[in-house]
Amino acid sequence: MGVELLKNVKEEWWKAMTYREDVEGLDASILMHPRVWEASGHVENFTDPMIDCKQCKARFRLDTLSELISDKNKEKALKEFDAALLEKEGSLNDKFTEVLEDQEKAVKLLELVGCPQCGNKGTFTQPRKFNLMFKTFLGPVEDVSNVIYLRPETAQGIFVNFLNVMNSSRQKLPFGIAQIGKAFRNEINTKNFLFRTREFEQMEMQYFVKPGDDKTHYDEWKERRIAWFKSLGMTPSKLRFHDHPKEKLAHYAKEATDIEYEFPFGWGEIEGIHNRTDFDLGRHQEFSGKSQQYFDDQTKEKFVPYIIETSAGASRSFMAFLVDAYYEEEVNGEVRSVLRFHPKLAPIKAAILPLVNKDGMPEIARKIENDLRPFLKIFYDDKGAIGRRYRRMDEAGTPFCITVDTQTLEDSTVTVRERDTMEQVRISIDKLLVYILEKMR
Amino acid sequence: MGVELLKNVKEEWWKAMTYREDVEGLDASILMHPRVWEASGHVENFTDPMIDCKQCKARFRLDTLSELISDKNKEKALKEFDAALLEKEGSLNDKFTEVLEDQEKAVKLLELVGCPQCGNKGTFTQPRKFNLMFKTFLGPVEDVSNVIYLRPETAQGIFVNFLNVMNSSRQKLPFGIAQIGKAFRNEINTKNFLFRTREFEQMEMQYFVKPGDDKTHYDEWKERRIAWFKSLGMTPSKLRFHDHPKEKLAHYAKEATDIEYEFPFGWGEIEGIHNRTDFDLGRHQEFSGKSQQYFDDQTKEKFVPYIIETSAGASRSFMAFLVDAYYEEEVNGEVRSVLRFHPKLAPIKAAILPLVNKDGMPEIARKIENDLRPFLKIFYDDKGAIGRRYRRMDEAGTPFCITVDTQTLEDSTVTVRERDTMEQVRISIDKLLVYILEKMR
Repeated sequence: MGVELLKNVKEEWWKAMTYREDVEGLDASILMHPRVWEASGHVENFTDPMIDCKQCKARFRLDTLSELISDKNKEKALKEFDAALLEKEGSLNDKFTEVLEDQEKAVKLLELVGCPQCGNKGTFTQPRKFNLMFKTFLGPVEDVSNVIYLRPETAQGIFVNFLNVMNSSRQKLPFGIAQIGKAFRNEINTKNFLFRTREFEQMEMQYFVKPGDDKTHYDEWKERRIAWFKSLGMTPSKLRFHDHPKEKLAHYAKEATDIEYEFPFGWGEIEGIHNRTDFDLGRHQEFSGKSQQYFDDQTKEKFVPYIIETSAGASRSFMAFLVDAYYEEEVNGEVRSVLRFHPKLAPIKAAILPLVNKDGMPEIARKIENDLRPFLKIFYDDKGAIGRRYRRMDEAGTPFCITVDTQTLEDSTVTVRERDTMEQVRISIDKLLVYILEKMR
Repeated sequence: MGVELLKNVKEEWWKAMTYREDVEGLDASILMHPRVWEASGHVENFTDPMIDCKQCKARFRLDTLSELISDKNKEKALKEFDAALLEKEGSLNDKFTEVLEDQEKAVKLLELVGCPQCGNKGTFTQPRKFNLMFKTFLGPVEDVSNVIYLRPETAQGIFVNFLNVMNSSRQKLPFGIAQIGKAFRNEINTKNFLFRTREFEQMEMQYFVKPGDDKTHYDEWKERRIAWFKSLGMTPSKLRFHDHPKEKLAHYAKEATDIEYEFPFGWGEIEGIHNRTDFDLGRHQEFSGKSQQYFDDQTKEKFVPYIIETSAGASRSFMAFLVDAYYEEEVNGEVRSVLRFHPKLAPIKAAILPLVNKDGMPEIARKIENDLRPFLKIFYDDKGAIGRRYRRMDEAGTPFCITVDTQTLEDSTVTVRERDTMEQVRISIDKLLVYILEKMR
């Protein structure tokens, strides 16, 4: 059912983003030419600082090292390193991290703390940059000239196909290219279930605009994207923008915001919206030697387009929709667990539950099943008490339960129970499909 | 549009295979534990024999080397190698290949021919096995203990999840697990457009059955799968089974067949159906130390299930549907190029073509567009002669063209032109969506 939920999230994104006149779909490959990642800056900059213990060979990420050290040990080490620091304002952790950020000081401080794994003091390597791209070799010879990378983001596949797509689709600015696909990052620490994994799925759209119009499009896409999550039922109070302050912007960005969701473990980014300026196309123009300029028919100007990016995590969105839908409530003195998915996202759209296994009822129920299956994901269940069968479907988030009962034999109607209100209506069997499709709009 | 076609092929496969009571969907990861590929046999056996020229360092696949050598040179080399061979029955190429298959003889023969790249004679390495799996490293340390592989097939992700899926979905034998996803093979020679690429997409279903029932299920799935291609409009005479003869079966297979399509470059496999016996689950049981046995409630027997596999190439099916749909025909003395896609597969479902840009017609056309877009991939085109606009949509394979004309202003009807017959009917605007959806069934 998780597969079906993820598939539905991606399907709704694809419809919202590409069933538009101004956006084309793309499916670029995971293994691209390695020069793409030189142009994008990933070979040079997509790195984490790492430090090794020379004794036990353990390797640590410098920027998250402090998580592995107890407050007591931090305080002790800081005291030896620079007692004056302890007197200053601010938390112990901030002070410790600040020292670690200076790579020269980091080694000294760590020598005072000792290796978080083996406890050894005094033998650490200098911090080094570790690239987060997974690398592999094209062809049978494993040498430097054959190194290729698993893409760490889908965006670059869009940038290098900008001219291809524009020319074959006869699009004019402003227009976008959308793509769903897997990306890979060799993270040292994965965490929070699907929130940070080494293999994950992105839903990215790059919108190409005229410089000067970028601010307007950036603002419009911000609103459109947060509205998308709300339109699929995500609780508005658990969604917010986190605008990046100017001094913390990535090197390519003029403006950037995260759409954050309040997970049980805290607020976390589920989508980023960025004004990437002409950085990307400019770099690909430079590295490929091929002009990425756009010619404006009306003003007779030539320029490299600006890019507004909307980059959502499919896996993270999946997790946000899942936890957001979960409710426990009391019904008739018992706890009911229910996943209140928007019907478009629900893994199973309708369950068919014949009340009694006799008098031709199973045959009618099976006929309904066969009629609906080509259009909807259906679950058939004729085992156990009807109350338990309802609860099972509540837990799966199935929005509609169809019950075949004795009245069905008389007038060819069935009851349809709605998941959230638990109300039941009688519907004629021949109107069932249209009824459910209408409710799913 | 290619992205949309591929997406539709996958969607129809997913519906045909998982909108059934006895099949569950899965989405396993591309990077799996490396022991999976030891258990599957890929680390040991998924290899091609390679030979290197010591002078120019070129590397050749032994089993396809003869393609690079002219008949004249083959004949000359064979004469020197063993003149008696030339007297025998059979083609020159078969004789040459037969010698190459013996790895000791291969080096000698190649020394007589010379390197196909630099012409050098006499210095070749012994043939070596080259593994076709792409490998990479998990974590920052690039050593043997951190090697992981990009999956060369999606099937193993299904096998290792067999018990997980069965227990969480309450399925009983026989049942299947279906998955669509990318796989990677470090092929030396790619060829025939999308037919052989290093990165490709599979649509695989593994059906778990009781030993003894395997033959019946194998036969049923064979028929079901070829019927699927036909149901989506593929020309029956261009489809055939190629049953593998007993002596050429893979080590895991008891019975195997390919569904082949007649491409412009010849017959090629688009799907394989295999009776894999209990080989896979048996191996995973052995390597994981965890029982993969199934307990049969009714007979009280315990056994490792047999597996019937249906393994289709998404990329290859895409290409087959594309070339199969292409027709050129004469219409009023001109050649019309048309892609006769099944409406379910067509990238664009309907085009909206207002005849005249005045009298409120564009507004009506835009309103129709907005009403249809949430449900269907729509293309709007108001530029140029209507004849040219129709032809453009014929080339894109769009099954329905909707024309807004002066009569529309009077009675709120539009014409709908069907792509293949080019016949036009008048339809009331408010019945348009249902009309198209009905035609798409």
